[in-house]
Amino acid sequence: MSLIVTGTVGIDSIFAPTGRVEGVLGGSCTYFSAAASFHDKVRMIAVVGDDFPQEHFLTLAKFRGIDTSGLEVRTGSKTFRWGGKYHENMDKRDTLFTELGVLLEAPPKVPDNFKDSRFVFLANTHPAVQMQLLSNFSRPSLVVADTMDLWINTAREELGRLLSSIDGLVLNYDEAELLTGKRNTVAAARHILQMGPKFVVVKKGEHGCLFVHRDGMGALPAFPAEVVIDPTGAGDTFAGGMMGFLAAHCAKDPTANPKSLELILRALAHGTVMASFNIESFSLDRLARLQPDELRGRFDEFARMMRIQ
Amino acid sequence: MSLIVTGTVGIDSIFAPTGRVEGVLGGSCTYFSAAASFHDKVRMIAVVGDDFPQEHFLTLAKFRGIDTSGLEVRTGSKTFRWGGKYHENMDKRDTLFTELGVLLEAPPKVPDNFKDSRFVFLANTHPAVQMQLLSNFSRPSLVVADTMDLWINTAREELGRLLSSIDGLVLNYDEAELLTGKRNTVAAARHILQMGPKFVVVKKGEHGCLFVHRDGMGALPAFPAEVVIDPTGAGDTFAGGMMGFLAAHCAKDPTANPKSLELILRALAHGTVMASFNIESFSLDRLARLQPDELRGRFDEFARMMRIQ
Repeated sequence: MSLIVTGTVGIDSIFAPTGRVEGVLGGSCTYFSAAASFHDKVRMIAVVGDDFPQEHFLTLAKFRGIDTSGLEVRTGSKTFRWGGKYHENMDKRDTLFTELGVLLEAPPKVPDNFKDSRFVFLANTHPAVQMQLLSNFSRPSLVVADTMDLWINTAREELGRLLSSIDGLVLNYDEAELLTGKRNTVAAARHILQMGPKFVVVKKGEHGCLFVHRDGMGALPAFPAEVVIDPTGAGDTFAGGMMGFLAAHCAKDPTANPKSLELILRALAHGTVMASFNIESFSLDRLARLQPDELRGRFDEFARMMRIQ
Repeated sequence: MSLIVTGTVGIDSIFAPTGRVEGVLGGSCTYFSAAASFHDKVRMIAVVGDDFPQEHFLTLAKFRGIDTSGLEVRTGSKTFRWGGKYHENMDKRDTLFTELGVLLEAPPKVPDNFKDSRFVFLANTHPAVQMQLLSNFSRPSLVVADTMDLWINTAREELGRLLSSIDGLVLNYDEAELLTGKRNTVAAARHILQMGPKFVVVKKGEHGCLFVHRDGMGALPAFPAEVVIDPTGAGDTFAGGMMGFLAAHCAKDPTANPKSLELILRALAHGTVMASFNIESFSLDRLARLQPDELRGRFDEFARMMRIQ
């Protein structure tokens, strides 16, 4: 079942108590795709400028499962750049700079041969752009989107239209509160269900995630992490692990329902474990050297932690 | 396998965004015992003054499994009273007043017929008092203690002695940081293992718990709660559900090891579910009307949420 992600491929500079890196590979589409590629092939839709470094193309190429043929390199344009600084306890960050560059121009085109994609993840961008990208896919099996405070504050109407067109929404707990005015995370997630989606995944960082589905609820802790080098991309690798698992599982078992409570719960555990590797390094470093048996081993450990009956 | 708890039985006044109550039944020993009594009989060691209201005795009596013969009523003394005010988001509180009363006097005596207790929970009090109480039990199978910031700050040496005499420590995440100087909760818990205990349970309130054991780790989310009326006693009901399950399980299966990673993980899930009921009301109201089938039903639901393989 073909998986596709739309989002950003960018260049990050990160300042953290654990170190600093400048000009490294980043972006939601990048992190998502790298994570998903451990489960299934993944098609990437993004655009960069002609300043995008060769070494970053080489890093993307290390992930065999990523199909980069939808990554447009636009001549004369500048790649999206972001700089962030993490606070002492790593759970909050300030944006130091944002150079939107090519993100201010037309969004990337979806190649015709990608329009049959069945699993669609719309990484965070303006909801009108997410809607336009979504319109390219003729018969998706599962559509999940991410969003952020900026669009909740500035594009509420377009976000409302998006919410009625997707199956699942992934967002942070503080964004869930902002979107609904409800401080209790369960109440906020339930409220979002009334806006359209069949399920909502609320990300709580080091505290794991909460999951509200029309058929029930779920919650998972984060994988207990002693080493946190850089949380950048944790949310996108979480989503990539989740969607990659769902796409791969449904390819193997065509009778499986990717929107079911049970299957998404399992998918969230795969996302959780993937994110736990990502935070062990800056940029894609850890995922680039992650071995399938390490991934399996940690997943089994995580499952064991919660086999409570 | 006989379970005993030492701690406070007190009178609380609670001010919360969800309401206010004055003069209600509270105390660590109370919450723990009420919770544990759903699994097994539990012996209570505490002391109150002769101002302790008759209605509170009647409430305790509703929990058939609680043996109150170790609850001393001291003539001429005043019952411990505590007043607290919860902030808007319910996850922080200020102490409005503390009237220690009888807690300033000699601790309660452990009746001779309780000295064979095998499962011992030392609820939060001065670590020297916890040590003295512990010395009453000749051959306990499992000893778990709770502590708090006050003793970490003022009785570090006595706390160190306690830690080398117990099997497990239960404490809040911010207290784990205070005790170890380590901000990362996993690192803090690992550090505490070096101080003596075989396992450490770090309570994170609405974010569940983290568990570090000499043989491995565990983590559980809280049960997703939409209605939070009063978090008072959540930590003690969590501990009561956990210890009650362990005592009951090991009574049924004498070959079970109450200190094993696997069994404690299951016990933590029972604690988590018990706490989720407690926060649905002020004082003991919810637990007093909790039915065994409700408890089983929610436990099964919680287990289902995490059956990820």
